[in-house]
Parts: sequence; C-alpha cells; structure tokens
Amino acid sequence: MAMDVIHTVAELRARLKSEAAIGFVPTMGNLHAGHIDLTRIARDRVATHGCVVVSIFVNRLQFGPQEDFASYPRTFADDADKCRAAGVDVIFAPTEAEMYPESQNYFIEPPEIQHILDGAARPGHFRGVATVVLKLFNMVQPTVAVFGKKDYQQCRVLDNMVRQLNLPITMVLADTVRAEDGLALSSRNSYLHAAERAEAPQLFAALSKIKKEIFSGRRDFSAMETVAVAALTARGWLPDYITVRRSEDLLVPVASDCALVILAAARLGKTRLIDNLELT
Amino acid sequence: MAMDVIHTVAELRARLKSEAAIGFVPTMGNLHAGHIDLTRIARDRVATHGCVVVSIFVNRLQFGPQEDFASYPRTFADDADKCRAAGVDVIFAPTEAEMYPESQNYFIEPPEIQHILDGAARPGHFRGVATVVLKLFNMVQPTVAVFGKKDYQQCRVLDNMVRQLNLPITMVLADTVRAEDGLALSSRNSYLHAAERAEAPQLFAALSKIKKEIFSGRRDFSAMETVAVAALTARGWLPDYITVRRSEDLLVPVASDCALVILAAARLGKTRLIDNLELT
Repeated sequence: MAMDVIHTVAELRARLKSEAAIGFVPTMGNLHAGHIDLTRIARDRVATHGCVVVSIFVNRLQFGPQEDFASYPRTFADDADKCRAAGVDVIFAPTEAEMYPESQNYFIEPPEIQHILDGAARPGHFRGVATVVLKLFNMVQPTVAVFGKKDYQQCRVLDNMVRQLNLPITMVLADTVRAEDGLALSSRNSYLHAAERAEAPQLFAALSKIKKEIFSGRRDFSAMETVAVAALTARGWLPDYITVRRSEDLLVPVASDCALVILAAARLGKTRLIDNLELT
Repeated sequence: MAMDVIHTVAELRARLKSEAAIGFVPTMGNLHAGHIDLTRIARDRVATHGCVVVSIFVNRLQFGPQEDFASYPRTFADDADKCRAAGVDVIFAPTEAEMYPESQNYFIEPPEIQHILDGAARPGHFRGVATVVLKLFNMVQPTVAVFGKKDYQQCRVLDNMVRQLNLPITMVLADTVRAEDGLALSSRNSYLHAAERAEAPQLFAALSKIKKEIFSGRRDFSAMETVAVAALTARGWLPDYITVRRSEDLLVPVASDCALVILAAARLGKTRLIDNLELT
C-alpha cells in the first residue's frame, strides 16, 4: 500500500480511525539511519497488520530565541523517500498553523529534570518538547511510541510524563545508532566541517572511558568528570557538561544508586553535540 | 446490565476496551440532581449502545492546605444508588494510591485564567483540576465528557485545555440545575444551616438583577458590580467577587465583546457559594 502524506489533524484521524495498532515515531525531519531504525522498531511492535506513523514537525516551542529554529535542516522530499523505502505507512507533517492555530498557552510542566543539564542551557526546551509530544500523542493516539536514547533527557522527560499522566501508550526507548567510529547519529552532525567530523567521536570516547573506569570500581564521579572536561577542552571542545547521573530522574546519584547514565554535551566549533552511555 | 464499580485503572481499561462510545462525567461524589442531569446528557450523547462512566474521586491536588479536603462529604453508597437508578454503566472510584502512585510532579499549567477569580482565592486549584481531569481522560478515553456550568471557570479551563492539547474528546458544558428558588445545586449546599439555606438564593438573585440591567442597555459593569457586592454584604454575605467577564477567557470585557458571563462567589456563614449566569 502506498504511503500517505497527511498535513491536517482531521485527515489524520480519518486515516487512522480503524487501525487496531499504531506505532508512532515523532521527529523533526532531516531523517538519518537512527530515525529509520526507530521506524523498524515501531514496525516490529505493531506487526504487518499495524500502522507505522512518522511525524515531521520542527517545533518552534522547543527552540530558544537564540537557537537554530530558522536554520534547522528541512529536507522533506528526502525524508519522505526514506520513510517510503522503510515501509512507513503514514507521514504526518502538520503546518505551524495546524499545530498552533492559536497561541499555545496550556503547557505540560515537567519537574526539576526540565531545568538541569540540557534544560539549564535551553530554558523552556523540555516544556516545549513535552507539550508538542502530548499534542502529537492526542492527534495520533498511538499504541506504541518509539524514541531514541540519543536524546536521553528527552526520553526520561517523556517516559515520566506518559506514566504520570496515565497515557495509554507503550513507550519504547531505543538504543542510539552510531557511526562506525562511535559518533552518535544526529541531524546536527550535518553542520560539522570535515575536521570537526573527524574529531567528533572523541565525545563518545570520553563517555566510554568513564564507563570503563566505573566498571573497574571507581566511584569518584566528580573527579572523573573533571578530567574528561579538561581532556575535551584541551582538544578544542567547549564542554557544557560531562556527568554521571542516575537514569530515572538525572539527579546526582547517591551511593546506593545502581542505574546510572553518563551524559555529555559539548560544542565543537559552532555545533553543539550531545551523547550518553547507560551503565547496566 | 448491572452497574460495574471499578477501583483500578487496569480493570477500567479492560472493562471499556470494546466500547465504541463512552460518555464520561467526572465528579467528586456527593451526587445531587445536577450530577444526575449530567449523566442523562452523557447517555443522550452515546445512546443506548454506548457506555456512561461516572468517576468519583475527591482530588487532594485541587484543595488548598486550609480548605475542606478532609471534611468534603463522602457518600459513596448513596452515590452508587443514584448512579444505578440513573442507568450509569460504570462507576470508576480510584483510591488515592491508584490516582497518585507516586508524588504527582507533571502538571498541566493553564494560562492566566487559572490565577483570577476563584483561582485568586484558591492558588493551584485549577492546575490541580486540569491535571486530574487529564489523567482521568487518559484512563477513561471518553468520546464525550460532560461538565456542569455551575463551575463555570472550571468549564472554561477544561474546554480550553481540550482544544489546546488536541484531545479527541467532545466537551459538553451543561446548564446549571437549580432549586425552585433559584439556588444552584452544589455539594457544598449541604453545609448550609436552615436560615442560610433560605438566604442562599440571593446570590442568584443578584446575578439575575445584573443580567436584567445589561439587557436593558446598561454597560457600566463596574458600577453594577459595586452595588451588587454592597447589597449582599448588607444582607450578611462576604462576597469574594461579583463580576461581568467575557465567556471565553474570563478576562475583563472590552466594548466589542458580546459573549459575556456574570460570575459570583460569596461566603454565607462558613460556606463559600459560587454561581454564574451567561448572557446570550
């Protein structure tokens, strides 16, 4: 069956009305192999009789006034080709007027997790993400929603939101897809010049080093973090943070915590890269 | 078919799984003829093949620390009898632990409307209402939800929330049911002593007087409000507000507004009564 490209909520609801199982992958477009992996996972979950929906919407609400909303890569024709090739059933690509027909003034307000790490650098970002994803959930009404752990803090904000608001949706948090040299796939990688692209895997290398040290028994997280920040800085990066946190709420771990994640954000030239590594 | 009384989300979802149309009336219990009228409206909307669900949950989140959460009337056996007699299909009465298995820390944050009028007297009230109703909506997944206009500000907060968050629910805002002397039915009327009950219809009388004056051509809202407050005060009331607002967002009307509502809240003895009257 041909893939449907739908731009309005009314058409979307009509198209999905009789679907028994819907797997949903929300995106901002500029799709890469990481996104396509999420659609594959969505397909596995709903099987061949189910419907896989990818949304493409660059959400102004989650960009700060100084951020790259205007220049964020918009590559709809390519994205549609990739979705078609991946067996996606429906692309939902609402216009700004369809998503926000009036000024949005009801928000999902997440707790402290929205203000730390990437939230500290991007005030309002996770509130904007939570609000648009809840709107999309209410439009698509998926059985299963799939998000990539590359955006780990986003995953936690949304997974906690779904549980706390009792949404009837199974959340699947998928492992990060990486290039052969370890760099996490990301739309923003396209901003990197050749020399930056060659340097970029050092972010994952820094995370891997800390993981290895923790597995070898070290628990002096703060010291390891300081060394990692200094090492990246010496290589020309501007690190925002490299930090060990507990997985659930991304707060600083106490001694008894065993579910941990190492998170990093650092600027390389004009591009801000993020990555993370769970310890299980 | 016998009415089901359900206490857990899992049982509720199993019971409602195959229902094609669900009409939902959220309540805090202590049901009176006004609530039963809402169930009748829900039945009309989903017809005999549909399912009418009444939830009964006294929501701690919407009570202030000095308010009547502990003493709020809880009359479950009577409520169940009334629902059964009214042909309700399902009562959903979650425990506190079922509704809030962990401390609620994701909230729906409404705009300015949450801070004015009843929101000024009750900080956090409408945030608590919006959050629990969204949770209930996600549990019940109704086709239609019915609310009484007696709680006019609540109706507007929730109706705007449904529209802004794209919930796939038809909202029905039902006219207030009144006693023969004009008093709006309310669970809190049971707090009134006999002499207070005899005085209580004066609140509606004050609203009706302003409505008549506006229909006769007066537009000096502020002067009419002052006279009404003084008149009730002289009768022994402690008015919080009597005010003409525009219906949509309850802000102070500008000259061009034609959809108006008169709202009042006033204390009679220890009981705070609210009422309102739309101008159409």
